[in-house]
Amino acid sequence: MDGGFDYQAFAASQLNDLKDAGNYRYFADLERARGAYPKAENRDGDARRDVSVWCSNDYLGMGQHPDVIAAMHATLDRTGAGAGGTRNISGTTHAHVDLEAELADLHGKQAALLFTSGYVSNWASLGTLAARLPDCVVLSDAGNHASMIEGIRHSRAEKRIFKHNDPEDLERQLASIKPGRPIIVAFESVYSMDGDIAPIAEICDVAERYGAMTYLDEVHAVGLYGPRGGGIAEREGLMDRLTVIEGTLGKAYGVMGGYIAASAEIVDFVRSFASGFIFTTAIPPAVAAGACAAVRHLKTSDVERAAHQARVAEVRGRLDQIGIPHLENDSHIIPVMVGDPNKCRFISDELMRRFGIYIQPINYPTVPKGTERLRITPSPVHSAADIDALVAALEDLWAQCNIARVPLAAQ
Amino acid sequence: MDGGFDYQAFAASQLNDLKDAGNYRYFADLERARGAYPKAENRDGDARRDVSVWCSNDYLGMGQHPDVIAAMHATLDRTGAGAGGTRNISGTTHAHVDLEAELADLHGKQAALLFTSGYVSNWASLGTLAARLPDCVVLSDAGNHASMIEGIRHSRAEKRIFKHNDPEDLERQLASIKPGRPIIVAFESVYSMDGDIAPIAEICDVAERYGAMTYLDEVHAVGLYGPRGGGIAEREGLMDRLTVIEGTLGKAYGVMGGYIAASAEIVDFVRSFASGFIFTTAIPPAVAAGACAAVRHLKTSDVERAAHQARVAEVRGRLDQIGIPHLENDSHIIPVMVGDPNKCRFISDELMRRFGIYIQPINYPTVPKGTERLRITPSPVHSAADIDALVAALEDLWAQCNIARVPLAAQ
Ligand SMILES: Cc1ncc(COP(=O)(O)O)c(C=O)c1O
Ligand SMILES: Cc1ncc(COP(=O)(O)O)c(C=O)c1O
Repeated sequence: MDGGFDYQAFAASQLNDLKDAGNYRYFADLERARGAYPKAENRDGDARRDVSVWCSNDYLGMGQHPDVIAAMHATLDRTGAGAGGTRNISGTTHAHVDLEAELADLHGKQAALLFTSGYVSNWASLGTLAARLPDCVVLSDAGNHASMIEGIRHSRAEKRIFKHNDPEDLERQLASIKPGRPIIVAFESVYSMDGDIAPIAEICDVAERYGAMTYLDEVHAVGLYGPRGGGIAEREGLMDRLTVIEGTLGKAYGVMGGYIAASAEIVDFVRSFASGFIFTTAIPPAVAAGACAAVRHLKTSDVERAAHQARVAEVRGRLDQIGIPHLENDSHIIPVMVGDPNKCRFISDELMRRFGIYIQPINYPTVPKGTERLRITPSPVHSAADIDALVAALEDLWAQCNIARVPLAAQ
Repeated sequence: MDGGFDYQAFAASQLNDLKDAGNYRYFADLERARGAYPKAENRDGDARRDVSVWCSNDYLGMGQHPDVIAAMHATLDRTGAGAGGTRNISGTTHAHVDLEAELADLHGKQAALLFTSGYVSNWASLGTLAARLPDCVVLSDAGNHASMIEGIRHSRAEKRIFKHNDPEDLERQLASIKPGRPIIVAFESVYSMDGDIAPIAEICDVAERYGAMTYLDEVHAVGLYGPRGGGIAEREGLMDRLTVIEGTLGKAYGVMGGYIAASAEIVDFVRSFASGFIFTTAIPPAVAAGACAAVRHLKTSDVERAAHQARVAEVRGRLDQIGIPHLENDSHIIPVMVGDPNKCRFISDELMRRFGIYIQPINYPTVPKGTERLRITPSPVHSAADIDALVAALEDLWAQCNIARVPLAAQ
């Protein structure tokens, strides 16, 4: 038909705008080498090069841990590839049940519920709680992740944003809400892109004073903090003060999936009403078994966490020595600030091409415009030689970028 | 604090309402036996029993296919457990790239895009397209799946529902839309719970007349229909008339994940703007490799599809012989209508307990109240003896239910 809307042209023009702004995303095709990670092979057309990965969220290298791999092989052989159905219709396997019990125990809660991802766990849980609690108000930290924002948006509940990590602003806002209304205070422990950590105790103090429930995303903390890997809330002895703790199995635990842990009633409520939980195929039993092995291992082993922190401190110290600017924080995330999307991409491309170092540029909309960065995530699997190579490469490029600052900015 | 909202009590009372209505969901804990599927072990407290599964969406038994299992083992050993990041930040592996190419080819499209599930692929793709096409209207089939409904809702675009599988009603509604506005016609090929099939050609005729793009969910058809498993649209030679084809890797392909296939621009558009695609860990490379093996196998092998159709016809014929009522349709889904949630659950419990046959009762909200059913999904892996056992068990229970109709209805 003529005169109709041109879908192709519209899509193409929006993509061109992204390219013009330097925010178009090019994916790096990688194949990590189990046992040799952080080494991976990068394919670029027909070219292949060996690279070291410095931007993975497999923070501890659990994705290649022998217990995890063995559990996955064994479950694959015993039960096959997929779950074969939604959790309700033939898709609940013993691996799911075991993992949920392990996660409830990890967070000291009565129950836990698995989702296909951390994204879906936030979206579905917040979406369901905020929609179904009558006349609910959600207080959402200004720095919250897209998955929480979308869940809250989905619920169509009233939403108020409080200043990032600011219990006083939270309190001011709570004080204006009519007593007796259900309230959810939603926040994260470790913020992914800046690596700063929430004042959980203070936020709980305020929330309790106003009868609000608390919903904490520990996606970037589970496995990494606390004596058993229960996250920042475990480390600070605060798990029982949080109504819902949410986490992922795709980062420190090295596999895939997401979950919430809470009281039996809250978990059963989400289980019973969340569309994003009900109407989707369950994760493969082998994936559940692998994640379960990782959670179990990190409940008793502290070696990985100690090595992780040591490696992070070392990289930070070395960057300071050569004057590379990075955001200070108390976590394992090292954001090296660049502040320009094209420059960020240039440095990243050079790291890959000349030095075999892979650090994805982080541009808008993942971070605000003007705060483009390289987000470095050291891991226990990075050797002293890996660190030397990283530091030398950054030193080289920083020198080059200073020299080349004008042409770079103009490109 | 006192006088605050009681979250626990609220959740508990809502759960009690579900129980009173007979709609509370009890999950069956199963472990399928690879190689012996449809056999599985059911755990119930300490009790364990051997059962035959008759309600899985692993329609062809691909979840235990040697090629699929071998691909997963090999990829697990080569690259490790998880992807380690989002697709943009270190999570794109060669297994993802390969699978996307395989899926684009399957549907005769320029490109394909992987998501963590079929649910997320619908939610994120429709949510993004309908939100970003300026002043978009979505025409949604009345029978559409929750994941499409939530995606459309998410977009906040104008939505109009057309009568299920009714191109005339669609046309009436399209005729009233101002020419030039972008329009998405969203529908499914095989509807999961009734098993009926959409008049795809007629819907495309109408959509084309009004300049609408078409979005077809082939979740219950990919792998199962068409000479290469491309779904109903492939079977009918209509793939090129659909703007977007969506599918899952968790049903006939036996693993997990979802996707869309479309033009390069549309795929790149969704890739670049969909929050549910961008901000989540990629599926494990082993999962992608397993799904890829299943897609490849079913592109060239027709044996599974032929055996599937034969088994479905046989079960249907046998049910007719003993007068068990089931919805007529042209697909592989056999809905045995019960029409009452408690009776449906009773029959399902008895099948499991007395006969070792697992068919989950399908109650509200998966199907409308009053249409509660047993949804039987025969598969090439069901033997003649399995079918005999199923038919004998249903005959027995139907006789019992007729006798016991009054007490059952009153329970
Ligand atoms: C804070 C936060 N929450 C949730 C998620 C989603 O978790 P997943 O990757 O398991 O979907 C992410 C990142 O992906 C995240 O950074
Ligand atoms: C029609 C339809 N679309 C999408 C989905 C979601 O697919 P997945 O299970 O891969 O999330 C389902 C079922 O789960 C479905 O029945």
